[in-house]
Amino acid sequence: MTTGFKMLGVVLGLTIAAGTAIGQDAADKALADATKARQAQMQLYAFNLGLLGGMAKGEIPYEASAASAAAGNLLSLAQLDQSHIWPEGSDEMGVDGSKALPAIWENLPDVMAKNNDLVTAATAMDSAAGTDFASLQAAMGALGGACGACHKAYRVPNS
Amino acid sequence: MTTGFKMLGVVLGLTIAAGTAIGQDAADKALADATKARQAQMQLYAFNLGLLGGMAKGEIPYEASAASAAAGNLLSLAQLDQSHIWPEGSDEMGVDGSKALPAIWENLPDVMAKNNDLVTAATAMDSAAGTDFASLQAAMGALGGACGACHKAYRVPNS
Repeated sequence: MTTGFKMLGVVLGLTIAAGTAIGQDAADKALADATKARQAQMQLYAFNLGLLGGMAKGEIPYEASAASAAAGNLLSLAQLDQSHIWPEGSDEMGVDGSKALPAIWENLPDVMAKNNDLVTAATAMDSAAGTDFASLQAAMGALGGACGACHKAYRVPNS
Repeated sequence: MTTGFKMLGVVLGLTIAAGTAIGQDAADKALADATKARQAQMQLYAFNLGLLGGMAKGEIPYEASAASAAAGNLLSLAQLDQSHIWPEGSDEMGVDGSKALPAIWENLPDVMAKNNDLVTAATAMDSAAGTDFASLQAAMGALGGACGACHKAYRVPNS
């Protein structure tokens, strides 16, 4: 299984590029573009998780095919290569609108481990979601927990 | 191969729901959330295509592993299930910020065919991108063409 979360090389690469080969405007744009891309990925996580969560809570009628599709989407998204969407400098201090704490870049192995946990939970949900309502419900805790673990440690808290 | 673009059933489902089971505010929110999710998907397409296009034009140094990763991302994204992100009513007239033309919902078989074309072009790029620079360049035309064909027919033109 590949998590696609191989960002260290790119982090180093972009740091060098920002200081030397490209101008400040281009470096700022690269950081902003990467931030937008990862926020887009989070948006798609949230959309699919919202459907699964709505079903788990009984707010949306359980439908195996829709649940399975949403879980498959989550798993595909979690396995995207993220090498280019977490450049150093794209934290809340560096990019307007970023909610990423600088602690991410001080704890890369832990961040990558947390992404692995998400892939594991999404894999389990991918198996469970289309089985039946009880299976979907049983898989929600680990999935929500994987999201929350990373947000708690590495995202600016909602005020 | 599955394109994940099975939206007709959901379009009908949401149309019914909007008129009956849920209130207008909830229906508006559902349309806005779906629009945001598909714009997020487009954002991720653009980010990965931008990397490949930059390499093809020589603006970014060709690197097989990065090219391959971006192409793999594009293919995964194009194969996501899109059942829930194109509800009828989420066109430019129905949702603030939407650039989707109403023609989409009048031509669903063609829209789905165009998504299949994107999957085909992304599959070819996924094979080509990591091979060498010339292969990446050769695959760009069809990939850009697949994006453009849908935008030309179904997206509000940039003014």
